[in-house]
Amino acid sequence: MSPEINKQLVAFLEEGRAVLDDQLDRSVPPLGTYPPIIHEALRYTLLLPGKRLRGILVLAACDLVRGKRDAALPFACAVEMVHAASLILDDLPSQDNATLRRGKPVLHKAVGEANATLAAVSLLARAFGLIQGNRLVRDRVRNEAGEVLSRGIGTEGLIGGQVVDLESTGKELDLDGLEFIHSHKTGALFIAAAELGVLAAGGRSRDREALALYAKNLGLAFQITDDLLDYSGDPEVTGKDAGLDRDKTTFVNLCGIDGARQLVDDLINASLGYLLPFGKRSSLLRSLAEHVRRRDR
Amino acid sequence: MSPEINKQLVAFLEEGRAVLDDQLDRSVPPLGTYPPIIHEALRYTLLLPGKRLRGILVLAACDLVRGKRDAALPFACAVEMVHAASLILDDLPSQDNATLRRGKPVLHKAVGEANATLAAVSLLARAFGLIQGNRLVRDRVRNEAGEVLSRGIGTEGLIGGQVVDLESTGKELDLDGLEFIHSHKTGALFIAAAELGVLAAGGRSRDREALALYAKNLGLAFQITDDLLDYSGDPEVTGKDAGLDRDKTTFVNLCGIDGARQLVDDLINASLGYLLPFGKRSSLLRSLAEHVRRRDR
Repeated sequence: MSPEINKQLVAFLEEGRAVLDDQLDRSVPPLGTYPPIIHEALRYTLLLPGKRLRGILVLAACDLVRGKRDAALPFACAVEMVHAASLILDDLPSQDNATLRRGKPVLHKAVGEANATLAAVSLLARAFGLIQGNRLVRDRVRNEAGEVLSRGIGTEGLIGGQVVDLESTGKELDLDGLEFIHSHKTGALFIAAAELGVLAAGGRSRDREALALYAKNLGLAFQITDDLLDYSGDPEVTGKDAGLDRDKTTFVNLCGIDGARQLVDDLINASLGYLLPFGKRSSLLRSLAEHVRRRDR
Repeated sequence: MSPEINKQLVAFLEEGRAVLDDQLDRSVPPLGTYPPIIHEALRYTLLLPGKRLRGILVLAACDLVRGKRDAALPFACAVEMVHAASLILDDLPSQDNATLRRGKPVLHKAVGEANATLAAVSLLARAFGLIQGNRLVRDRVRNEAGEVLSRGIGTEGLIGGQVVDLESTGKELDLDGLEFIHSHKTGALFIAAAELGVLAAGGRSRDREALALYAKNLGLAFQITDDLLDYSGDPEVTGKDAGLDRDKTTFVNLCGIDGARQLVDDLINASLGYLLPFGKRSSLLRSLAEHVRRRDR
């Protein structure tokens, strides 16, 4: 990656994150809205400092096909809301039973399990509301976007991955099984993000398909780099419980560090291939993929 | 209620329930779809025999403003999915900790808490997908319907009611507080159902407002009759745990049996008032309200 492109990417990531943080803050009722506990709860996880990678992917996909960023912003916020909801649910005692998330106590430690569950559900409902209320895109686009998000969340997406993940805990998993889990748990929302960005721009279905495949590979690579980072296991850096996934098969314990790194390379190379038809305009998404290849947090 | 109208209502309720049961069965993936446990889970609560009153309200509201039933059917199924999801979540150990629902073990007893929670979330996502995929109504109608459902579920609807209900358990509640809880926990989805029916029919916003108010009063009355039935407390009849709500303020322990019955009368009379502009066409919704007033299960 040339220093020039790298500088562009860093600026894009920082600006995207700032725009999303600001817009997410406005997309949920202010603190104190009745009933106060649930509004506190839904802001808690949603507004933790994060990379906002999924939201940024929506914006970048929209840019790539020459869309207007304002039109993509509600879709980007919707994706971030779904992501936050999935984190809340994953952390529940009945699921991964986590205690830390982004360096802070998980939501159910702060507001109790019932309110945490309800906060996740209200974030999901709000995400669909945001999409349907996006007056900057055509009615038809909102319909398609709602369908894309529904599939991304459902049993053929995020939830399918989480279910198989929970079932596999403590069992032997092969690479296919592990890839199934993460291409659903992580990949599905990356795919939805890319599709929503193209939809917001009124892009062609050919572009939507190519970017969905870019995102699918990027998402899986992202998850494997997550495993690699977790393996180093310093909660100061990851903001998560160290060794929480001990009973779970990870790409690192299945393929070794070198094998996992090789897999990341293969996936990133595949994702870059899907950008070829876009030529020079795709430099930002290319550098985003390179960024995931090399990320250290 | 004349015997003629009563016969009409009974036929409508039976037919509506059969149509909805059939359509709901087709609206979720068949048993055995991978991953099997989650598809089993989401069919479990959704397809328990029930009154389908919310779905029937969608169909009846659509009929009233001369809409086509086929156009309303996906909306009706969406509302029933949201209702099923809310039952699953309400029953969780962290919430009402129920053991029986419609005479069967609650979902989390059958498939575990994690899968039950994920089943509820996937039903919600699927409900939005159904609405957005309803090709029998205009794009704009689907947008509005998605917004209506989002509000009905969110912290200004169902979830707001459930949060206040949980917070109030074991505390003194006055009638205003109790009405807040149930006009949200039950009323919000009744309102959404009526609005979705009018939307599916392409009805006017004036009709939508009137029917929303009809439904709001009907929903609250329905909840109070629930309390009255629970008070009799025979799980053989109610299919629910007897006395589960012992720590909760109910309309019966706040107002007494006669007071609660009076409240039901007042609410049903109010709901009937909102039907006046519709004249004779509203006979079915009128008899539905009378049916709620007198229901014994």
